[in-house]
Amino acid sequence: MNRVVGEFGLIENLARLFGPTPAEVALGIGDDGAALAAGGDRLLVLTMDTLVEGVHFDLAYISLAQLGRKSLAVNVSDIAAMGGEPAYALLSLGWPPARKLEEALEFGEGLAAAGREFGVAVIGGDTVASPQGLTVTLTVLGWGKPGALLRRNGARPGDQVYVTGPLGESAAGLEVLRRGLTLNPVLAAPLIEAHLHPRPRVAAGRLLADEGLASAAIDLSDGLAGDLNHVCRASGTGAVVLGATVPITVGVAEVARLLGADPLTLALEGGEDYELLFTSPPERAGRLFEAFFRAGLSPPVLIGEITAGSGVTLRTSQGDREISGGGFDHFRAHRRQA
Amino acid sequence: MNRVVGEFGLIENLARLFGPTPAEVALGIGDDGAALAAGGDRLLVLTMDTLVEGVHFDLAYISLAQLGRKSLAVNVSDIAAMGGEPAYALLSLGWPPARKLEEALEFGEGLAAAGREFGVAVIGGDTVASPQGLTVTLTVLGWGKPGALLRRNGARPGDQVYVTGPLGESAAGLEVLRRGLTLNPVLAAPLIEAHLHPRPRVAAGRLLADEGLASAAIDLSDGLAGDLNHVCRASGTGAVVLGATVPITVGVAEVARLLGADPLTLALEGGEDYELLFTSPPERAGRLFEAFFRAGLSPPVLIGEITAGSGVTLRTSQGDREISGGGFDHFRAHRRQA
Repeated sequence: MNRVVGEFGLIENLARLFGPTPAEVALGIGDDGAALAAGGDRLLVLTMDTLVEGVHFDLAYISLAQLGRKSLAVNVSDIAAMGGEPAYALLSLGWPPARKLEEALEFGEGLAAAGREFGVAVIGGDTVASPQGLTVTLTVLGWGKPGALLRRNGARPGDQVYVTGPLGESAAGLEVLRRGLTLNPVLAAPLIEAHLHPRPRVAAGRLLADEGLASAAIDLSDGLAGDLNHVCRASGTGAVVLGATVPITVGVAEVARLLGADPLTLALEGGEDYELLFTSPPERAGRLFEAFFRAGLSPPVLIGEITAGSGVTLRTSQGDREISGGGFDHFRAHRRQA
Repeated sequence: MNRVVGEFGLIENLARLFGPTPAEVALGIGDDGAALAAGGDRLLVLTMDTLVEGVHFDLAYISLAQLGRKSLAVNVSDIAAMGGEPAYALLSLGWPPARKLEEALEFGEGLAAAGREFGVAVIGGDTVASPQGLTVTLTVLGWGKPGALLRRNGARPGDQVYVTGPLGESAAGLEVLRRGLTLNPVLAAPLIEAHLHPRPRVAAGRLLADEGLASAAIDLSDGLAGDLNHVCRASGTGAVVLGATVPITVGVAEVARLLGADPLTLALEGGEDYELLFTSPPERAGRLFEAFFRAGLSPPVLIGEITAGSGVTLRTSQGDREISGGGFDHFRAHRRQA
């Protein structure tokens, strides 16, 4: 949710027009989703995301069934970033009239299977003609606990910055698909899988929320550099990322080598990781790792620290550099293409 | 919601894939929206609708501010058709990067003003790049009372068929705009207004729901012929419409004359009226008219009757003809273009 178009922060400008939100609204514009006090002891958590053919996916690289699944996965990832439990979805499908009905059913089968995978019932929908290309918009509803929602704006100087898994795999997988890179299949397969079949971190998000372990969280859709900057801006802080601690797999390093690029750039700027980025005070680290261990989840990876000030700084053996403004246009231009 | 693409009932085919809905779901795919038992004594009512540039609107005829308002109005109309009270909206805006930020703000101002008009708070959103043209998807949430939701599937043979206002004005207004028809401005103005500035019938919908006056309801977005057929199919009935009783204004008649078309066809096939169509047992007619009168609403117009069997029959002095299969391709091809 709330991704910007280009550089001008469109939704943030629009948000100012919409004015203050009513008391029933626990979370409004500016986070991964919205949340409503729906009655009873639950919060209703809402996200909405659109995938546009030619911008976010290319049907040369992703099947319609995979697209159906991924459309739901990216919304479920926003629910995960709030610590919610996904429950329902509404679909608005913009369908090119020239495409066959069978293809729509292929998309629908992928979406239905993803619904079973994530425990999400598709309860409503709308289809419209979209002659210029396929568009998929999903609204996903989930449930959260009042007072235990993960937000972007709670990071404080001194908090540690964690990610739930390796970065850059999805972007590397897209490069493999787009460029037909020749790569050991053992290395290539998990990259392609990361791109076409992302796994939103619902269990980690719920654990962080339920046990009060995170001060802020976001899902990594735009890439670590951009998403950590969203957290810093919402929290009024800066951050330092230690380059050497960023989790990069052998496959990502190999794709970077083939492209003549820096693996760290691929990891920080690639986007579509759908891991969670979260912050947590250092005194909670013991409880944090213990909780992940008990839940059978991979341990989170400590990659940096929240600071006073603003902006995101990358610290490597070559010194410090600012990465919050976005980096390599090569990856930026193509990110979120499937 | 649940509009079909072309002739093949895409969403209905998709719905079969998504399987049965959980018990918490009061209303799933196949109605104007979905409804959830959200906790407490309220139902959460949800709708989602997409407008695609070049299909549903043409920026040559509608301003971005008008489009912002209309995007919300058409969703609010779906809430009205369920007897709900609109409350919140999520926006997903597909924005062509070539368009200026100022234009997005113009759209946003129209949407924000509509939010105030309809009592709807925009609580979340997402913007994505959409190089092929502007797309607007809104999810609107509202509240309804358990057991008092208007549905499509409750019409029974012998029920009377009503509409809440004149038909064909929006379609006639679009023809005036598209063709630059020369028409007395006193006649043209309300037609253009009906097209660019539709007024969803929230008060009428809530009255019908709260006082148990309707056996089925739908909003007139696709045109009476198509929408009454949706009610008949959902209810397992047929219907007869008496042509002479269909409310047609002088302006609609005049546009039809200029086009060499039948005013009744414009009224039945034009679409985008955003009036409510509802059915009600004849013994409730007294209470129905009294309730509308007391609420200060224009009286509903009786236009036909639900029958056993299937299909929608138009009865005129020239005899009976089936209209459920859709009629004049001229209007059909261009309907929902603004």
